[in-house]
Formats: sequence, C-alpha cells, structure tokens
Amino acid sequence: MSRHFGAFQRLLPPSAVCTDVGRVNTSRVDWLGQFSSPVLPDSPKFLLQPSCSDEVATILKYCHEQRVPVVPQGGNTGMVGGSVPHRGDEVVLSLSRMNKIHSFDPTNAVIQCQSGCILDNLNEYLRPYGYVMPLDLGSSGSCQIGGNVATNAGGIRFLRYGSLRSNILGLKVVLANGDTIDLLNTLRKDNTGYDLKHLFIGSEGTLGVITDVCVATPMLLANSVTALLGLDYYEDAVAALSAARNKLGESIAAIEYWDSASMRISSTTQLGLGDCRFYLLVEVASNMNLESLEDRMMDFLGMYSKGVLATDEGKKKSLWKLRENIPLALKGMNGHTYKYDVSMSPHLFNQATLMVQHHLAAEYPHAQVFQYGHLADGNLHLNIWSPTFDQEIKNLAESTLYEFLRLHRGSISAEHGIGVLKAKHLNVSKSEKAIATMRNLKFLFDPYNILNPNKVLN
Amino acid sequence: MSRHFGAFQRLLPPSAVCTDVGRVNTSRVDWLGQFSSPVLPDSPKFLLQPSCSDEVATILKYCHEQRVPVVPQGGNTGMVGGSVPHRGDEVVLSLSRMNKIHSFDPTNAVIQCQSGCILDNLNEYLRPYGYVMPLDLGSSGSCQIGGNVATNAGGIRFLRYGSLRSNILGLKVVLANGDTIDLLNTLRKDNTGYDLKHLFIGSEGTLGVITDVCVATPMLLANSVTALLGLDYYEDAVAALSAARNKLGESIAAIEYWDSASMRISSTTQLGLGDCRFYLLVEVASNMNLESLEDRMMDFLGMYSKGVLATDEGKKKSLWKLRENIPLALKGMNGHTYKYDVSMSPHLFNQATLMVQHHLAAEYPHAQVFQYGHLADGNLHLNIWSPTFDQEIKNLAESTLYEFLRLHRGSISAEHGIGVLKAKHLNVSKSEKAIATMRNLKFLFDPYNILNPNKVLN
Repeated sequence: MSRHFGAFQRLLPPSAVCTDVGRVNTSRVDWLGQFSSPVLPDSPKFLLQPSCSDEVATILKYCHEQRVPVVPQGGNTGMVGGSVPHRGDEVVLSLSRMNKIHSFDPTNAVIQCQSGCILDNLNEYLRPYGYVMPLDLGSSGSCQIGGNVATNAGGIRFLRYGSLRSNILGLKVVLANGDTIDLLNTLRKDNTGYDLKHLFIGSEGTLGVITDVCVATPMLLANSVTALLGLDYYEDAVAALSAARNKLGESIAAIEYWDSASMRISSTTQLGLGDCRFYLLVEVASNMNLESLEDRMMDFLGMYSKGVLATDEGKKKSLWKLRENIPLALKGMNGHTYKYDVSMSPHLFNQATLMVQHHLAAEYPHAQVFQYGHLADGNLHLNIWSPTFDQEIKNLAESTLYEFLRLHRGSISAEHGIGVLKAKHLNVSKSEKAIATMRNLKFLFDPYNILNPNKVLN
Repeated sequence: MSRHFGAFQRLLPPSAVCTDVGRVNTSRVDWLGQFSSPVLPDSPKFLLQPSCSDEVATILKYCHEQRVPVVPQGGNTGMVGGSVPHRGDEVVLSLSRMNKIHSFDPTNAVIQCQSGCILDNLNEYLRPYGYVMPLDLGSSGSCQIGGNVATNAGGIRFLRYGSLRSNILGLKVVLANGDTIDLLNTLRKDNTGYDLKHLFIGSEGTLGVITDVCVATPMLLANSVTALLGLDYYEDAVAALSAARNKLGESIAAIEYWDSASMRISSTTQLGLGDCRFYLLVEVASNMNLESLEDRMMDFLGMYSKGVLATDEGKKKSLWKLRENIPLALKGMNGHTYKYDVSMSPHLFNQATLMVQHHLAAEYPHAQVFQYGHLADGNLHLNIWSPTFDQEIKNLAESTLYEFLRLHRGSISAEHGIGVLKAKHLNVSKSEKAIATMRNLKFLFDPYNILNPNKVLN
C-alpha cells in the first residue's frame, strides 16, 4: 500500500491525501461503532479527499489500473456498514471537501452542488429563497447529499415529496475506470435514451462515485397543523390512510405510526387520550392560511373519538417528540435492541409484529417487540429488545420476519440500503434472476471489483 | 420468415399468432402514417399477440436463439416511430391482448395490471374507488400502459404527480433471451440493490419487454378552478411560476403556456383580455371545498391586470380548449408543420423561439413560428409552419434549435422519446461517454440486437 501512497502523492495535490491518524481511524469505523475495518499490516494509513470530480477521476483511473479497492464515503452516517472498509485493504475516498454549492435557480427550483455538501447546509442555503431540500433525516447535520443519493435515503418528507430518487434531475458520476459521465442537467423532463442516473442512485457506491448532483427543491411551507389519534384497532389505523387522503389530500405532510409498547417507553406524559393500542401522528403543511389548514384537520379529526390537535409550535413539537423519542428510548434501555427497517403493505404491519412476537414469546418471555414507522409509505421499523444480546433471538426474529417478507413480497430494507449487513439476505426481496442481472451490471461497470467491494452484492 | 412462422405456430396457442392481413398491415405503420415498415419479400405476414408474460418469454427465447428481430408494440400512438418495424424484417409483438387488471388496493392506492391495458380503461376502473392514473395523454383512448411506461410518457398531469417513472412501483420484464425478471412489487420504499426497473422505463422496448406493471395512483380530485392570464412580457410568465408556487402551492394542477401566434390560430373568441403576447393557463385542483380553492386562485390572480377565472365546467373547458386547439389548428392549416418537443430552463422558451424565428426570417419570410407547452416543466412544443414542406427550412430550424439546446444543456426530447426519428441526434443531449454507456447496456441485455433494432441507439 505504501507504493500506492507514493503514487497518490504524485498524482494529487497535497491537500487531497490526508495522513492525520485520528481522521484516518475515524474514517474506518461507522458512526455507531458497529462496523469497522479490520486492521491489516497493509491497511492504508491515509485517506483520499479530492476537491473535485477531476481528482476523483484521477484516483479511480489509478485504482482501476492498479486494482486498488476504494470505499467512497460521505458523512458516514449509514446504518448498514456501507461506507467503511470491510476487508481492511480498501482506501477510503472521502467526499467531504467537495462541498461547493454551484448554483440555485429559483424559477426552476433546482439546486446544483457537489456531493460532499451537508444536508443541513443545503437547507440553510435554500431558506432565504423560500425552498427546502426534499428530504429530512435525523443525521441532517452530518450526512452528505452524495451519500443520500448513493443510498436513495428516505426520511420523513418521503410521503409529501416522494423518493429522493424522483427529485434528482442530474448527476455527475465517475466510473470505476476513471471515465466521467456528466448527466448534470436541470431538466424536469428528458426522454433521451436510457436514464443512466437511476443506475447510480441507490447503488451505494458500487457502480460509480457520484461527484455532483442537481436536486429539485420544494417550497418552504409557512404553516402546519399536527394531530395525534389514538386507535383501538389496527384496521382503524389502516382505514385512516384513505380517510386522510380524502379529507387532507395534497396538504398531508406526514403520517407516522406507533403502538402502545412504543408509546409506553416514549412518553410519561398524560395526553388525555387514555390507553390506546395504536397511535397515528398526522401532519398537514401548506402555504395556505393556517385557518383553512386547521379546518381541514378538524374535519378529519371529527371522524375519530380520541384525538388531539396542535397548531402552536410548542405543542406540535411535543407531539413529534413522542415519535422521535421511540428510537432514543430504545437506545437508552439497558439490554440489546434488534432493529429492522422493512417495508410491506400497510395492511400487514400488525400481523408481522404479532407473528414475530408469537414466535419469541414461548422461548424468550423477556423479549419485547415494538412497532413504529411511516405507515403511509409502508415502512415499518420493527424493534425487538432483550435484556442481553442473544444470537438465538436474532436468528429466530430474523427468520420469522424475513420469511413473512418473502411470502408477502416485502422489502428487507425500506430506506437503509443493503451495505454489508444485509447483502446475504438480498434474495429475500429480489429474485435470483434480478440478482444475476445486478451482478452483470456490477461486472460491466466495475470489472475488477474495486468500488466498495462486498457491499450490496457479496 | 415462413420457417419462423411455423415455429411460432408450434410454440404458441393459435390465438397468439395473427395472420389477418388488415391487422398485420396496420401494425406495420404508425397512427400518423409517418413511419412505416419497408415491405420486403421476407417481411412477416403475421403478428404475434401473446396473452401473458410466459408467452412473451417463449417468443423472445426463440427469437434470441434464431436472431429474429422483434418490435414490441402497445397502442402504437408514439410520435417518433418507435413502435413500428424500421428495416422490414422485424416481427411485431403486440401487447394488446394482455389487458387484464390484476388488482387494485385502495389502502395502498396501487393498481397492478398487464401492459396492454388501455389508459382510459384503467381510469374507468379506478373511478369508482376515487382514484385516477397519474398521467393523462391525448391518446388515452388507445395508448397502453406498457407503452406509456416503456416511453416514460409525459402529459398534463406531470406537474402535479411527477414523471410516470416516479409512479411506477413494480414491473415484470422479459429480457431478450427470454428470461423473466419479476420486479412486480407494490412497495413505495425498497432499497434492496440496484433499482432495475428504471433501466426498462423509458428504454422504448430496446432492453426488454414490459409485460406487467404496478402503478401508484393519486386520488380523484373533486374540485378545480382554472384561470387564464394574459401577459405582455415573457419575464412575467417566468415570474408567475414562482408566484404560483407561492400562492397556490400544492394545489397547482397545471401551468400551460402559449404565445400570441398560437392564440391567433387557436381562438376566434373575444376573451376580454385584449391582445397579449403570452398566455398562461393555471389550474388548481383539490378535494378541499371549492370556495377555498377559488379564494386561493383569486389571491393569485389579484397580482395580474389581465386575467379571467373559470369555476363552472363549461367555462373551464373553453379555457382548456384554447390550449388544446393549438396542435389541432396547426394540423388543420394547409401547408407543413415541423414539430419539436424539447425541454430547457423555463427562462429560455422565448429566446429559443426568437432565435429560430430570426434565422428563418431572412430566407423564408412565409415561415411562422409558434411556441406553446408545459412552462413549469420546462417542456416547449416549438412548431414551425410553412406553406409547403421544405427540407431547407427543416435543416435550418433543426440546426438552430439543436445548437441552442446543446449550448444550454436542453433536451431534444422532453416527453416523446427517441425512436428512429431522433436517434441520430441523441448526442445533442447526451455526451459521448453517456451514449457509450447506453451501448454497453444494450449489448449486455440484448447481445444479438433483436429488441426494437435501430430505435434509440442507431
């Protein structure tokens, strides 16, 4: 690897090769400390941090010729180990220095920037124009737009604005061999040949390195109203989806869901809803005046016997806190939490949860199951807690859940991606033929398997 | 070809091989009569019309082994010659008999059906549930959803619901070699590996044959309000986009645009707007009550001195007629119309039009230029009329317009696709590297070039 180090020093400006021990070490472990690079005698003691796509091209051309494996890394905030070395011999290619905003056109509402821009910084840049990014994530203070795009990140704005994928108008990508494909246009409609950008979006850095992006941005909305519903039957939560679409229509901004077990750990506050088995947080947002927004929400709430409405910021925040506290509370409990980010028809959340619960109950009476997530998007965060980590619980829960997903054509990863964590389970959600096609694409774009090896496909 | 005819008869049920002379001939020419198959001694005197994806697989497996070229055909309503044979030796594979609706789930709002379903029939099926298809086209009475998906069709619902691509949740595709990739899921979120379906969407039948689709459907909206603005400066039309987003927000359903030349041929009615240089038709639609919708529109209209508002069906229709009449009026004029479907930043419509006009004026004083289109989507339909067809006018207009698009990173095909018509101009909108990548993909998926040869890539 020292041979390559010398080569990178020759090929790149000094600022693009970092040997700071702290930074190098940090780059080789994920933010949760769950995935880290094995330390081999030959593990690189440097990381690469180019400032532009040309430097990325120089790096990959060399790595392609010399068969040097590369891990592209954005904010390193992923959940599945996709952005850290897995074998130990990979060079980390950090996009962090590529944080220039090229332009924003308020007429077309499109922002063009480098991949290393931090999500919060983009939002801050857009605010004076009255626009926002089409996604929001817990990690917005450190995640980078390039990583967001490479993983097709989800989050709570998905319901309103659709997938990040559908808001990406253009990309610049450097391929494994160092060739650059410039698809950096800002057009909303363009039917000229195969839409190559979608190959790279969500491919987790295994087919190319995204260096620049054009993102369509929605308007910043002035007003919002939030409501919390308490429901006794799961079917009522499902029925509320159609009712909300009907009564609240295009002003719906979020429909979040959790069960009584999640509520118990999230809140000690008395809400005046009494004990309910299921909860729905519904938010509408718009530039229309607050009163008509409130009217719409009241009309919807009128259908239910247990509900609270929030229009002032403090109360809205306290309702959202109930939802946001759930993962935090789980983290705070002594013991171990097994986390699953899956998707399925909204009909099935409770059935999936009950099935996992049922399978665990007999042998592991201390295990607790929690369900929460983005109901309207079909995205369930199923969490299981046990007093200590137990591989048997993990195996039983996983096999039960994944078998259920296989049967109902669900997804083992709704928004977190595959990384290394789920690569061996890809076949639960994708057929043999589909996976074979993915392998063919990987071979076409990266014949020497230098780009993020062992991720997505193992 | 008679050898292959016998083979198809052996391999398929009798109903899947059609020898009706009228139907065979119709299948070999496009609806506008602009593109037709050369008649060779060996041209097939039959067409294939399978009833399910398994039969499509049987057909393609045979064609792959025997190197028989195939043209997949939906409603044959395209504008660029993509759905008819170009060389003469291709077999037409019609999806028309594959018109089963598999299911609709109102909770998830997803319809699953075969590719040959006609768009209007799907809308009719959805209406009682209170849902609609996310696209609408002039050809909705005969175009098929599979063809819509294969061409990523646009239309007037694009602004509200986004591209058709972004509303497709699942596909079943038969590859050139007869392998079937079943990606037919109904999940809104699924980050499990490369999103293969986007390779096939918009690839115009050159990478695989789409046999079944899952489409996310929006709610049918009860109320709408339409307005027509007359403007004297192009900059005001552009500025109105941000104003509309701000005042009308998520209830915007359409923003259509045309110039005074288009207005003159479209309408003889006195609108009370006086003579204006540019017109904007703005529509809002929602399930909120008509009154608040009207209020929002009045608030927006208040910014302009020349505007009319329509709430009753008759008046709304008459405003829309002004827009819809433009292509019809052009068709009705004696002479020839040169039609361009391009996209660019909304800033540039008028500049592009003036440039073409300027280049034509000196040598062809009788040529007239018309601009209309979907302003907010950046989709300009630039039309040129001359008393007779003149190849020189075509050459001059095309070179001027395409040079402008190359300079401003515009698209030579916003929504109509490439087909045979624009294959040689693909490099205006896509770089050499991008086109080379498309060729690699084509070779990977269809090494013998049997699927819709000469389309998209020539």
